Amino acid sequence: MSAQVELLAMTPDPERVIELAARTSYKSFDKMGEGSASALICKLIRSGHESVLEHAYATFRIRGGSRAFTHQLVRHRLASYTQESQRYVDEAGFEYVTPPSVRENPEALRIFREAMEGAREAYRKLREFGIPKQDARFVLPNATTSEIVVSANFREWRHIFELRCHPSAQWEIREICLQILKVLKEKAPSVFGDFEIDEARKVARLEKG
Amino acid sequence: MSAQVELLAMTPDPERVIELAARTSYKSFDKMGEGSASALICKLIRSGHESVLEHAYATFRIRGGSRAFTHQLVRHRLASYTQESQRYVDEAGFEYVTPPSVRENPEALRIFREAMEGAREAYRKLREFGIPKQDARFVLPNATTSEIVVSANFREWRHIFELRCHPSAQWEIREICLQILKVLKEKAPSVFGDFEIDEARKVARLEKG
Amino acid sequence: MSAQVELLAMTPDPERVIELAARTSYKSFDKMGEGSASALICKLIRSGHESVLEHAYATFRIRGGSRAFTHQLVRHRLASYTQESQRYVDEAGFEYVTPPSVRENPEALRIFREAMEGAREAYRKLREFGIPKQDARFVLPNATTSEIVVSANFREWRHIFELRCHPSAQWEIREICLQILKVLKEKAPSVFGDFEIDEARKVARLEKG
Amino acid sequence: MSAQVELLAMTPDPERVIELAARTSYKSFDKMGEGSASALICKLIRSGHESVLEHAYATFRIRGGSRAFTHQLVRHRLASYTQESQRYVDEAGFEYVTPPSVRENPEALRIFREAMEGAREAYRKLREFGIPKQDARFVLPNATTSEIVVSANFREWRHIFELRCHPSAQWEIREICLQILKVLKEKAPSVFGDFEIDEARKVARLEKG
Repeated sequence: MSAQVELLAMTPDPERVIELAARTSYKSFDKMGEGSASALICKLIRSGHESVLEHAYATFRIRGGSRAFTHQLVRHRLASYTQESQRYVDEAGFEYVTPPSVRENPEALRIFREAMEGAREAYRKLREFGIPKQDARFVLPNATTSEIVVSANFREWRHIFELRCHPSAQWEIREICLQILKVLKEKAPSVFGDFEIDEARKVARLEKG
Repeated sequence: MSAQVELLAMTPDPERVIELAARTSYKSFDKMGEGSASALICKLIRSGHESVLEHAYATFRIRGGSRAFTHQLVRHRLASYTQESQRYVDEAGFEYVTPPSVRENPEALRIFREAMEGAREAYRKLREFGIPKQDARFVLPNATTSEIVVSANFREWRHIFELRCHPSAQWEIREICLQILKVLKEKAPSVFGDFEIDEARKVARLEKG
Repeated sequence: MSAQVELLAMTPDPERVIELAARTSYKSFDKMGEGSASALICKLIRSGHESVLEHAYATFRIRGGSRAFTHQLVRHRLASYTQESQRYVDEAGFEYVTPPSVRENPEALRIFREAMEGAREAYRKLREFGIPKQDARFVLPNATTSEIVVSANFREWRHIFELRCHPSAQWEIREICLQILKVLKEKAPSVFGDFEIDEARKVARLEKG
Repeated sequence: MSAQVELLAMTPDPERVIELAARTSYKSFDKMGEGSASALICKLIRSGHESVLEHAYATFRIRGGSRAFTHQLVRHRLASYTQESQRYVDEAGFEYVTPPSVRENPEALRIFREAMEGAREAYRKLREFGIPKQDARFVLPNATTSEIVVSANFREWRHIFELRCHPSAQWEIREICLQILKVLKEKAPSVFGDFEIDEARKVARLEKG
């Protein structure tokens, strides 16, 4: 089962908010009208003036990503995170992410599943012997899924997509960020429209001028 | 004329978003119901777990604040700003803020107004002699009003209010932040309800435990 | 084996740098002299003016902390991190952290060690079957040690110590942060002197006025 | 008189610290030796891996810059600032910055000087009439000099130089940042060596591979 992303909240009418903010610099409110937001935003992005994109935000819930993924994600410091805590949540029935390279290799898959069962069993026994959750979790694998809520502004989302949807990014964070990008491309096409998605390769790249 | 604040955008249903995020830590979604957001948010704030408040944002336009005020405001680094640019906007007819201590002192007021007229006149002449806007602005006073758009998350707004609505804060930033606080208290009472406003003194303080 | 911290770099003569910066606000350079830095810093901290502490920095290398620990640590966003990458480093011989509650419980310890051996074995076999390092690491446990270098300014270090050396903090991050605090207390006693260390309980708390 | 920059503090042996941090990712400490830091840093910068540059810092004092300049500078949020406060320092004898376009135009220069004298006179009189410093400063012009101390890590300094030493940057911040760049190019040539300074035009640009 692959990870799922869900849009929890977003600045209402984000492109209008960005336009309102941007026109403050030049006091050019008289130029607002049908289609003006889209034209302005594309121009600002092309000329590298992305700071105005910070006035729009989006919050996503991500379910089914591994702890390997969340450890990478939270390295982006200009965002806000709330994550399921292995210190407080009982993980006796934890779910896990199986990498594609393992799924496609029957022998590797067998070993991988045994390792997951072994970790589950060890976790349960440690709990039975009175080990607290926050210590029993030391046997949980990187593959363990962990729910996370993330908020970032549109400038930062663009930065995340540029790094994480790139072909050189690790497959899991790439696939999850690609799902988020698809939602934002639909909700704010002027802001995210210059990311071209390649569905076959599951990557996205900035289409440069 | 005093400064005016206008709410440009806010996370829709912000207390529900905060609750959804907060319950991710403990996977306690089963506890959600009528009034549960409010109770949870008050509890989180009382116990110092304010990071979940970062998932809600508000964007304000502030008109009629001085450049002395904007220079203070932008020192808050965990927020996003777009400001009217004196490099590009012609300031021949600039407006200005008169401090209350000056307004109440007829002789000081006369000197102040003459100084403003003097600056206006100097600006106009410099422009006539071909000085570009970005250099002519060097004669503009701190009192000159400057429009600014600011976005911050609710945790940061609380931090700003704690510092800037405090009796020791400078009067201009205090009055403007108080106006913003009033809007947010109405829109998200559980998040900002513990700030007690003293209308007479134009201050607000955290009501502690 | 417990984690080790090593000071890699620090602002030279940090208390003098902080004093020089602080005296800029009031242009009170004439008050500098023997012992003046220490007195000024204590006063600034007591009155909550900690922003000047941001002008001094310290960089530490931490060896022997678990990935559970590093995942917590990197949540502090006002710091800089460089971490050993499980995508690139071969982890066939990984070391691991054993929680005290497990070490003190012979049956739990046996299960824990078997789980570690199981993970090691699974990792090795996955690598033999051609699984790349970045995917084989999905079987590695939270207990796996991971080297990390962290830089932060003194204000942020104080904030980290306040949260992470507190009795309610998780034991591993508490013990590591306590080691860092001891180094900084020695190097910059005026800045960190108000943290009282309780060696028996392995905690530190702010001594409040 | 033009602005002066003074290096107050810097990470000792910064290129070695950056190398030590960078080699943590790959555990490639065995490759360290004569000249290895320089080669590694150039390679990291060329391939866009600039996060390791965050482990080295530099703090500068800037004297003689205008408030127009400091208002621009403090918009860089990933840095730390301490600035002379017009709320507390008496500005009766304030100094000011004269833009080159004004200096070269005798009539403009006369008007500019009169405006400065007018502001000084107004400030003094307001103070005589009992107006507190924090309100009297409302008549001070943007040209007023203001001392500021700024700390940033090397990655952020590179970002600031890229924007602010660029030909399109405003002349004052460009000249000041150019002075800072010259100091850092000398102290950490591998980190800042790819900025090419054009002394005649007072700009610097990144030499791209």
